[in-house]
Amino acid sequence: MLCNSFTASAQITKDYDLWLQYQKSSVANDIFKNIALNTKDETNKAIQDELKTASERMFQYSPTFSNSGNATLIIKKFSELEPTQKNIINKANALNDEGFAIETIQNKGKKTVLITAKNSLGLLYGTFRLLRELQIDPSKKHFSIADEPKLKVRMLNHWDNLDGTVERGYAGSSIWNWQKLPDFIDKKYIDYARANASVGINGVALINVNSNALILTPQYLEKVSALAKAFRPYGIKVYLTARFSAPIEIGGLKTADPLNQEVQQWWNNKVNEIYKFIPDFGGFLVKANSEGQPGPQNYGRNHVDGANMMAKALQPHHGIVLWRAFVYSETDSSDRAKQAYSEFVPYDGKFEDNVLVQVKNGAIDFQPREPFHPMFGAMPKSKLMMEYQITQEYLGFSSHLVFLPKLYEEVLESDTYKQGKGSTVAKIIEGKPNELSGMAGVANIGSDLNWTGHPFAQANWYGFGRLAWNPELSSEKIAEEWLQQTFSKDSNFVKTISKIMLQSRESVVKYMTPLGLHHIMATNHHYGPGPWVNDLARPEWNPVYYHKADKNGIGFDRTATGSNALAQYSPEIAQYYGDLKTCPEEYLLWFHHLPWDYKMKNGKILWDNLGIKYQEGVNEVKNMITTWESAKPYIDAERHQEVAQLLTIQLKEAIWWKDACMTYFQTFSNLPFPKEMETPKHDLEYYKSLQFPFAPGIKPHW
Amino acid sequence: MLCNSFTASAQITKDYDLWLQYQKSSVANDIFKNIALNTKDETNKAIQDELKTASERMFQYSPTFSNSGNATLIIKKFSELEPTQKNIINKANALNDEGFAIETIQNKGKKTVLITAKNSLGLLYGTFRLLRELQIDPSKKHFSIADEPKLKVRMLNHWDNLDGTVERGYAGSSIWNWQKLPDFIDKKYIDYARANASVGINGVALINVNSNALILTPQYLEKVSALAKAFRPYGIKVYLTARFSAPIEIGGLKTADPLNQEVQQWWNNKVNEIYKFIPDFGGFLVKANSEGQPGPQNYGRNHVDGANMMAKALQPHHGIVLWRAFVYSETDSSDRAKQAYSEFVPYDGKFEDNVLVQVKNGAIDFQPREPFHPMFGAMPKSKLMMEYQITQEYLGFSSHLVFLPKLYEEVLESDTYKQGKGSTVAKIIEGKPNELSGMAGVANIGSDLNWTGHPFAQANWYGFGRLAWNPELSSEKIAEEWLQQTFSKDSNFVKTISKIMLQSRESVVKYMTPLGLHHIMATNHHYGPGPWVNDLARPEWNPVYYHKADKNGIGFDRTATGSNALAQYSPEIAQYYGDLKTCPEEYLLWFHHLPWDYKMKNGKILWDNLGIKYQEGVNEVKNMITTWESAKPYIDAERHQEVAQLLTIQLKEAIWWKDACMTYFQTFSNLPFPKEMETPKHDLEYYKSLQFPFAPGIKPHW
Repeated sequence: MLCNSFTASAQITKDYDLWLQYQKSSVANDIFKNIALNTKDETNKAIQDELKTASERMFQYSPTFSNSGNATLIIKKFSELEPTQKNIINKANALNDEGFAIETIQNKGKKTVLITAKNSLGLLYGTFRLLRELQIDPSKKHFSIADEPKLKVRMLNHWDNLDGTVERGYAGSSIWNWQKLPDFIDKKYIDYARANASVGINGVALINVNSNALILTPQYLEKVSALAKAFRPYGIKVYLTARFSAPIEIGGLKTADPLNQEVQQWWNNKVNEIYKFIPDFGGFLVKANSEGQPGPQNYGRNHVDGANMMAKALQPHHGIVLWRAFVYSETDSSDRAKQAYSEFVPYDGKFEDNVLVQVKNGAIDFQPREPFHPMFGAMPKSKLMMEYQITQEYLGFSSHLVFLPKLYEEVLESDTYKQGKGSTVAKIIEGKPNELSGMAGVANIGSDLNWTGHPFAQANWYGFGRLAWNPELSSEKIAEEWLQQTFSKDSNFVKTISKIMLQSRESVVKYMTPLGLHHIMATNHHYGPGPWVNDLARPEWNPVYYHKADKNGIGFDRTATGSNALAQYSPEIAQYYGDLKTCPEEYLLWFHHLPWDYKMKNGKILWDNLGIKYQEGVNEVKNMITTWESAKPYIDAERHQEVAQLLTIQLKEAIWWKDACMTYFQTFSNLPFPKEMETPKHDLEYYKSLQFPFAPGIKPHW
Repeated sequence: MLCNSFTASAQITKDYDLWLQYQKSSVANDIFKNIALNTKDETNKAIQDELKTASERMFQYSPTFSNSGNATLIIKKFSELEPTQKNIINKANALNDEGFAIETIQNKGKKTVLITAKNSLGLLYGTFRLLRELQIDPSKKHFSIADEPKLKVRMLNHWDNLDGTVERGYAGSSIWNWQKLPDFIDKKYIDYARANASVGINGVALINVNSNALILTPQYLEKVSALAKAFRPYGIKVYLTARFSAPIEIGGLKTADPLNQEVQQWWNNKVNEIYKFIPDFGGFLVKANSEGQPGPQNYGRNHVDGANMMAKALQPHHGIVLWRAFVYSETDSSDRAKQAYSEFVPYDGKFEDNVLVQVKNGAIDFQPREPFHPMFGAMPKSKLMMEYQITQEYLGFSSHLVFLPKLYEEVLESDTYKQGKGSTVAKIIEGKPNELSGMAGVANIGSDLNWTGHPFAQANWYGFGRLAWNPELSSEKIAEEWLQQTFSKDSNFVKTISKIMLQSRESVVKYMTPLGLHHIMATNHHYGPGPWVNDLARPEWNPVYYHKADKNGIGFDRTATGSNALAQYSPEIAQYYGDLKTCPEEYLLWFHHLPWDYKMKNGKILWDNLGIKYQEGVNEVKNMITTWESAKPYIDAERHQEVAQLLTIQLKEAIWWKDACMTYFQTFSNLPFPKEMETPKHDLEYYKSLQFPFAPGIKPHW
């Protein structure tokens, strides 16, 4: 296969094709020989294109598409099935609108595979599911699958700016070419849509939550509608971030007060205009009164007033509002971890039906590890949506191999006890049947050839989509199926490499923020350690606010003797985390301030354990490197080298984190480094002196 | 071939592979079966990789590399040839250090192809030449070629900023991933080097001439050295832009005065440090006292003082200085077109031997058409280097198909008459044998999958390299060989499409700035027309300064009755352009201010001719669209569609230019539009109202 000849230029397709490699199969399979598919609508055309590509690449033949009798694969809506196929219809009828069934049936005496669903999108999802199964086992002929998404809104949030930069982006620049839209449809847009649809992602917010009102002007709406048209066959709806002050900036009004009739009218008109451009527009994603963004509070109103105003404008068109709960105030001196809960929980039940409150997984900000956000379960009369970060703002950018589904899973599995034992975060965001529900992920996608900057960061995009479809999936299964589709089906390879993927998230926690430490990254760009920073305008911007290290000890006391943030959790959780006997080591310094010589379960003191954890993180990266070396025989040389080079960066930076943090904390502990820990190469002044003025992803200039 | 199956993801290699497609050949050729090549040095390894790729893709077999007797291809330095091959040695010995010879010889009774040169780089150039010949004629077996570059320095200038943006970049963001360097070597760097070496480009200035001194700090030099290492096998040297005030910004000095001993010493030390990182460092590219950049004049010194200071620091290491002559002063009220000449010509003979004065092709700034720069030929005792712009700052960004080698050729062929008839610009920059000479092109390369934003913009990168190798090449030959390698060898296709390429540059002149108009683009981003702009701080920043339209007429009088810029040219040229009877229409309004009813050669008045030219430009784009439609059968659907979409943008914008400019100029001419011209759709206020705050490529924020 010339495609596989090892030249960088041929190679790039491997990086670019993500988990849709459709690698040449060593076994034959006739399943695509004759496909019965009605290609009248554009989604079915997308199904046809995908099957053609997959068949040619995997099995070296082009399918014929016809409705003749002897089909090897039938792809039909329930409504198009013959009565004899009632049993499948019944099975399938139990599924929701986006669900599908795949069954191997008897058709005119021949075994035939049937994909069926209520509508075309379900058929597309079923097709991608079939292709996943075949990428993992190309010989597979017998199917009996019924599946449906557990969440309604499964979306990516792009923090892309109109100038082409990406806030917190580490994979190059934005993939949206605003300059050439609407006339130029980059083929990347189609491949982006294919990748999303293949894991069930059905929504995209195109630009930064730190938004620019220009996106709501006709000049840009025309461009947005071209993107929406490109995504439509793949069942992906476009959402826009709505800058709260837009009525002033582009509407010429004097105010953006949500209770002002002119303002309400302006939004009604704007929404009507948007739907003229984009008939299936998804709705607005809003960051209001957060980190300097305008919002209803500028006019003495509250989040309910703001969200409901937009919700009412969208209701006639069945659009929705995603209102972010990521707020903390410059005037509120209480523990930042408590503020979102304090502000939003009183509003429970007051939001319109088409409002989803978008809550980050933790109460601070996308840290390597945080306890689940106390808002989950605390607003039973409201619809809460999960916001994860796929891009690695606080997790080593795109240079560190960190498999995030492990983090996502940890949060989803957490039991809030809010409606009694078993009321996990997953159950809470799944909400009530047929009601609005959702999960958002801040995209890690950019102009890099491999989309995400790190080949393994593709797994975080993939894994987010899989968990948005089914929040109860295991991260282990996700890692394995991603490896099988992306790199190799070899069981040896999958076993070894999935192991380092699953361990990678714990490693980054250990070498950055072990034992419950958090938010000690360098300022603004968050690249590397900055635990010493104490001179920023707002107290809660400073790392020292979070670790509170002094000669007496380290950690943030969030028990009753401290900020009592624990009181926002259910009594079971408050008790469990609050009691030093039961509090897991992972959250120790998140909830407790402890003396340096505090004796821990292993009999060693806190200070020694801190150094040991940092060292363990470094050692685990070393282990990743040797394990990756052993994977060489199984995959292409280029992607292997790509990852190998990135792992050397990860090791350098893991050591940097260990040395910088331990050297700094030693100024308080005044204790020698534990013998298990390798001694830092430089003194504290060196680590403090490092400057990275052009580290990527900082906030836009405007 | 699955590689060719029409899926976007497989397709991307076509866009990415540039003119190194190595398309599967329908005819066999054994030339690569057994290759005698000494692979001891890294350049020879690059030769080996390239031949392996080409052979596998074109002829479906992997070459064997050995030194056994029956070689089908011998690649050896002169010094390694057997005495029996003396005749070739003699022929080859006449070549310069970078030259090569390719001969089909008798070797042990068998016809064998021999590539020979003085050194490995010559062998690499010979190999790429052989591959070009074979891409154009895969059956070719008989070669008798000897070739050598006519210029010593053949370089790309990247105006890339350290934050990843690209000034005047229209193909995405910078391809330099500073964040991941030095440890991560993107495979793009290798493919970039391959493409450059294949056309003989041997130098790269990595960052913007509006420079940042940080690039000269160890933190960045370590990254630069990693790039230099990646480029080294391909004979590409790295150059850096040197910010004149660096001794203050990163050196802690109080001054950057070039006659200050501390400053000279600082540069000496800095250069020594650079060569420790990069033993084959090329030298400095400097923009000084130009558009606000610091320079020697800040200290009452002149360009000679500044350039020679850096030159002395580089001399011990055989590095060179590329000192830009693009200067115009805010205090000098004389015609901007005269200022560079006035300032630099008096310095003729005063620059150190290792200084090249880098002169833009025209006296204003990379316009669709300018007369050649009067400095060419005016400084016989200095070394002048050509600076072209490959990126289309004033030529439609990357949305317009404009084949620039036609522009480059026009300038190179221009006769300066400075040393008598036949002293063309080409001869002047070629300089004296064995003396320093060069050509620089401002790169059009970015993170886009196709590198240049427009598939046909790849031809401008290619064509620049070919002309830097041989300034006397014809643009027609370049267009044809590029099409044959990039798209299809079909003679029908090549004939039709090369025709629109060769005409494209004249078309953009017609629909933007016909009859010698210039610099009437919108402010700052230069996207679209802005002839009405008259409110910018400096007079020469305003389009009205250049077209001087009033009720009496239009055009810039640069004859003796006006600015007399013509006096900077040789008498023959001054006479030719100065006399309305001989002045070509292309330069009419560049040199003359004429009444609206001025009768032109075709008997029509100036105003009518203006409208007719604008309309011709539009009509020629329409013709490009229909011609491109006819090319559909010959090439892959994806690249065809990509170009077709871009042509629709080009047509929209050509019409926009015609309508905006004619509507504006009509306010002075007060004459009806000529009947040949399609009437504008909007009024002047509409065209003036258009705003593009995020048009790409504007100057960096810092």
